[in-house]
Amino acid sequence: MTEKGHGAMDVVVFGAGRIGRIHAGNLARQPGVRLKYVVDVNREAAEALAREHGAEAVEADVALADRAVGASVICSSTDTHADLIERSATVGKHVFCEKPADLTVARAQACAQAVERAGVVCMIGFQRRFDPTFAAVKARLDAGEIGTPEMLVVTSRDPGAPPVEYIKRSGGIFKDMLIHDFDIFRWILDDEAETIHATGSCLTDPSIAEAGDVDSTAVTIRTKRGRLCQINTTRRAAYGYDQRFEVLGSAGMLQAGNVRPTEVTAYSAKAVSTDVPEPFFLERYRAAYAHEIAHFFEAVTRGTPVRTTIADGVKALELAEAATRSWREGRALRIGEGA
Amino acid sequence: MTEKGHGAMDVVVFGAGRIGRIHAGNLARQPGVRLKYVVDVNREAAEALAREHGAEAVEADVALADRAVGASVICSSTDTHADLIERSATVGKHVFCEKPADLTVARAQACAQAVERAGVVCMIGFQRRFDPTFAAVKARLDAGEIGTPEMLVVTSRDPGAPPVEYIKRSGGIFKDMLIHDFDIFRWILDDEAETIHATGSCLTDPSIAEAGDVDSTAVTIRTKRGRLCQINTTRRAAYGYDQRFEVLGSAGMLQAGNVRPTEVTAYSAKAVSTDVPEPFFLERYRAAYAHEIAHFFEAVTRGTPVRTTIADGVKALELAEAATRSWREGRALRIGEGA
Amino acid sequence: MTEKGHGAMDVVVFGAGRIGRIHAGNLARQPGVRLKYVVDVNREAAEALAREHGAEAVEADVALADRAVGASVICSSTDTHADLIERSATVGKHVFCEKPADLTVARAQACAQAVERAGVVCMIGFQRRFDPTFAAVKARLDAGEIGTPEMLVVTSRDPGAPPVEYIKRSGGIFKDMLIHDFDIFRWILDDEAETIHATGSCLTDPSIAEAGDVDSTAVTIRTKRGRLCQINTTRRAAYGYDQRFEVLGSAGMLQAGNVRPTEVTAYSAKAVSTDVPEPFFLERYRAAYAHEIAHFFEAVTRGTPVRTTIADGVKALELAEAATRSWREGRALRIGEGA
Amino acid sequence: MTEKGHGAMDVVVFGAGRIGRIHAGNLARQPGVRLKYVVDVNREAAEALAREHGAEAVEADVALADRAVGASVICSSTDTHADLIERSATVGKHVFCEKPADLTVARAQACAQAVERAGVVCMIGFQRRFDPTFAAVKARLDAGEIGTPEMLVVTSRDPGAPPVEYIKRSGGIFKDMLIHDFDIFRWILDDEAETIHATGSCLTDPSIAEAGDVDSTAVTIRTKRGRLCQINTTRRAAYGYDQRFEVLGSAGMLQAGNVRPTEVTAYSAKAVSTDVPEPFFLERYRAAYAHEIAHFFEAVTRGTPVRTTIADGVKALELAEAATRSWREGRALRIGEGA
Repeated sequence: MTEKGHGAMDVVVFGAGRIGRIHAGNLARQPGVRLKYVVDVNREAAEALAREHGAEAVEADVALADRAVGASVICSSTDTHADLIERSATVGKHVFCEKPADLTVARAQACAQAVERAGVVCMIGFQRRFDPTFAAVKARLDAGEIGTPEMLVVTSRDPGAPPVEYIKRSGGIFKDMLIHDFDIFRWILDDEAETIHATGSCLTDPSIAEAGDVDSTAVTIRTKRGRLCQINTTRRAAYGYDQRFEVLGSAGMLQAGNVRPTEVTAYSAKAVSTDVPEPFFLERYRAAYAHEIAHFFEAVTRGTPVRTTIADGVKALELAEAATRSWREGRALRIGEGA
Repeated sequence: MTEKGHGAMDVVVFGAGRIGRIHAGNLARQPGVRLKYVVDVNREAAEALAREHGAEAVEADVALADRAVGASVICSSTDTHADLIERSATVGKHVFCEKPADLTVARAQACAQAVERAGVVCMIGFQRRFDPTFAAVKARLDAGEIGTPEMLVVTSRDPGAPPVEYIKRSGGIFKDMLIHDFDIFRWILDDEAETIHATGSCLTDPSIAEAGDVDSTAVTIRTKRGRLCQINTTRRAAYGYDQRFEVLGSAGMLQAGNVRPTEVTAYSAKAVSTDVPEPFFLERYRAAYAHEIAHFFEAVTRGTPVRTTIADGVKALELAEAATRSWREGRALRIGEGA
Repeated sequence: MTEKGHGAMDVVVFGAGRIGRIHAGNLARQPGVRLKYVVDVNREAAEALAREHGAEAVEADVALADRAVGASVICSSTDTHADLIERSATVGKHVFCEKPADLTVARAQACAQAVERAGVVCMIGFQRRFDPTFAAVKARLDAGEIGTPEMLVVTSRDPGAPPVEYIKRSGGIFKDMLIHDFDIFRWILDDEAETIHATGSCLTDPSIAEAGDVDSTAVTIRTKRGRLCQINTTRRAAYGYDQRFEVLGSAGMLQAGNVRPTEVTAYSAKAVSTDVPEPFFLERYRAAYAHEIAHFFEAVTRGTPVRTTIADGVKALELAEAATRSWREGRALRIGEGA
Repeated sequence: MTEKGHGAMDVVVFGAGRIGRIHAGNLARQPGVRLKYVVDVNREAAEALAREHGAEAVEADVALADRAVGASVICSSTDTHADLIERSATVGKHVFCEKPADLTVARAQACAQAVERAGVVCMIGFQRRFDPTFAAVKARLDAGEIGTPEMLVVTSRDPGAPPVEYIKRSGGIFKDMLIHDFDIFRWILDDEAETIHATGSCLTDPSIAEAGDVDSTAVTIRTKRGRLCQINTTRRAAYGYDQRFEVLGSAGMLQAGNVRPTEVTAYSAKAVSTDVPEPFFLERYRAAYAHEIAHFFEAVTRGTPVRTTIADGVKALELAEAATRSWREGRALRIGEGA
């Protein structure tokens, strides 16, 4: 870690899009951290974000060459992640990278090796593990409140599909959307998949099917210890962003529910009603994004372990690849089963 | 239908166990219906139940030979169902029979044919379709409130496993427990299965595994129209009987929740808490049992169609058989795929 | 108690209106009880109800003269209650009477004395004490779950005002509606009022004001032990019948909530919604009415004490009179303060 | 408004206690605002807070003499509020002041006049009006969702009493705690009090009674338009900080509920439970504090009206004084009634 005389760590953010702006804002609020550079192929976006935080918009080379920069926060498009992880690690910068490290397991593994060789911290942005509700379930589970976990049901629904152009480059719904759910699965059940079965349908927009993808999926995983997990996902829930899971244990159950904008309950002649959930990930996981950035800098500063390693990223990606194959081939697979 | 001079229909109940007692109580409250006979191999039980309702405990032959008897209500052990359905139908009595008609599809189909030949009403006791909450979801779905149904998630958990001796004779968890969920699936999604995948584990009691069964299952069905259904089941939920489902549609979602004994909310220094769900099926489906019996006698009296036909029973059983095979063979199956 | 050879107790019901029909149905289901007579000034109504239960429509004199009749269930109009209580008691019949015994404290007290002299059981129909939710709160309170009760907030709202003609004869909102809330207050806080303050407004229909009454009230009671109670009431809640209370104790709080027809939750683009409460008292207190009748006959048969005595009726009426005066005079009163 | 060359408004914060720290943090995040000075009789606290935000700890005179300072944020002890308001206004500084402006109506009115003469913005810190849930209720009410408001029930309970020394200087529970509830009453019902009745008890700690105060209160207000409001308050709710209200309108009801730390629901063999509410005002009103400071600086910068004026502060104080008198004298009062 390179620290400047003023005692703060300089940081570069790659990517000035929606999520880059979120991370930039959160690290600006982080004591002992200074946003020095913003890098984006869209120079205007880079400059706007840089200006907002008293940083500088530069080319990647400049930022990576600056020895004062202690960490790279990578929020650029997915196809640039692996390169930036490797280049950052090589010059000794700690890495925070949005999921996924890459769309292929092989390349993600190469990144993991590069990080290990360099001895830098590398954290993957599975922000859901930092959501206060999800994290509380995990903590209570670990404290034994419901005994041994036996079954996990994950509901993960987006409010609407992205443009088909995005879907075509996304690696498919299992890598693009469910990668988060696969990470939740490993984290909550504390076990690895033995078999996986995935099926899906295109129910909301035929152009998604034409792009070779589905918009609705149902995945079942059985773990090495026999625990069961079911994940249901859709690209389009008419009522908004639906992010819940429940874990059944030998002594009880814990449910993680949605977050609502307000706690108003309205009584009319027809119904008693409350708010729909927060509309999408930026609102739903606002606190999670703040906590994960704080966690990253704490890990960097104090040498504590990160909660979401690049190895977790690789594992989730392996599940996404297996799910994709299971869906395409219409059969259940054993994980590790050769092609 | 045979009616007596007093204008009431005479009925025989086969089986004086838990569920027989429930049905006897409900039909006693039914206007225009009179419980005339109770039949049970346990003569003492038959007499006790008969006495309670001013009926008579007799052998099956007597009841079936009595031309005044208009309907058989069959709640005896599963292995007697098919015989009693066929014998009742043959002598022109309408039939209400607890699920399943039989543990094999072939025999259940034979019963269906016998019933059809006889031209009597035959209703299978899928009482869940008569639960006020479940029925309200179905009605609102049919009214188009959430558009086209796309996905169904069924949570079906018992509070504790029955004795292993029972499990051995039960036909396995898919026929014994999930048959209800398969019926809910068909009813709610209003579609038939195209593929099914089932997996399971024995997590609560090794003697269940020794009996060749599992206690925890995860089933996924994809319908002919591409709709998705996931069912998760356990024999042992520490917090009681958990009977929920949710159906996602193109325009919203409907959830059917559990029923609680009271609407008390308690605030302590540690938590805000409400009652656990009703403990088991007799309490949870109390209203459903009453409604289904009323529905049966209405169908018999007015000639209206029954909501849960013997064909529905056969279909659910087919799914249970397919699920059993999918689980045993560790692979997804197409429904109708030859053995 | 007079019992017939057949071992059942014969009963007369006075009043064949809505509530009379409820009680008749419940006592028909009561083992060991037989509805023998129905009395109503509306002979047709009496005959219809009598016919439904195999009873006989007669004049009051006939029923009261029949020594086989063990109990009077009084659900006729309020102005007949006191007479029927006294006459029934005098001829040794146990009495169940709908609230209030009378609209004046003096006459209600006279009834209480008549009952005591006769040594019969007399129960007043404060059915709310038999509601499963309300009774559970009371039981948990008595078990010490929230320590010493300190504060009670009662919400008691009708879905709509009765005809003004009814209101004119009703004794006013405090005697007609809040009498139930005053009984809940005494029962839950287990204490007597020391001071009372009542205010009110006519907000829904000017003809209620013209009849000298209000439709919205706010009452505060401070008990002898310093406990506080607030009651808010309206004749017209647009969303239905709202019957809740919460009791704060030194160690926590218990809330009694409304009952809903179903446990459906609907998610639309606008809201997450559940059913409105049961529409009115016949539905909301269906279970309560059944329990209170069972309780009455248990008390009569076994000699156990009744939960809602005529003394409770007198006390609630005293509070209603004090509240009326407080409202009229625009000042807080000490209970027992001379006129 | 005095602005510096750098375009930001300089601000002084009076009071470096709990609430001062909250406001300092929020105004640091405010674009265009710079915390220049912190003033506190506890010099160490002032310096610590100043250091945290790159400000300077000075005496009040210094800050008030600095013409670059555009606004005073007053969070010092209540007995200093009026002086600081008047001195700030006199030298042309805008004022944000924690409630109450003063413990006496006369002095608060003098402050209001000083502010008016000076033509500066003056906002009183009734932060509850900025709580997202409370503000949403108000907005929906104003949009006519439930018709005309008729009745308001406010539940306002602290998790524990402050030290008796604090209570002695607090002006009593009606001025210290209920002043917020009186403000909510005026805001939500959009009407003024005509009569008020307050009663109370000391139920949690006898030393509060010895200090001449109560810890539990029940207040009823009837407005000029006949609307009704009930407020129940305690210093000690065992389950935490309870901040709810519900407003009944001619066409429905809106409830404002508590905020929970997480959305976890736990099922055990005994209960289904969720989190207790946020523990106290700093957590419960975290968002409200941020919004109110943003609102203040927006009003100052753009000249928009403030939502909580010093006139609102005076009105709430008048109600608190009237409630205190009503409680002491044991009688209902007309507002404006002479002493």
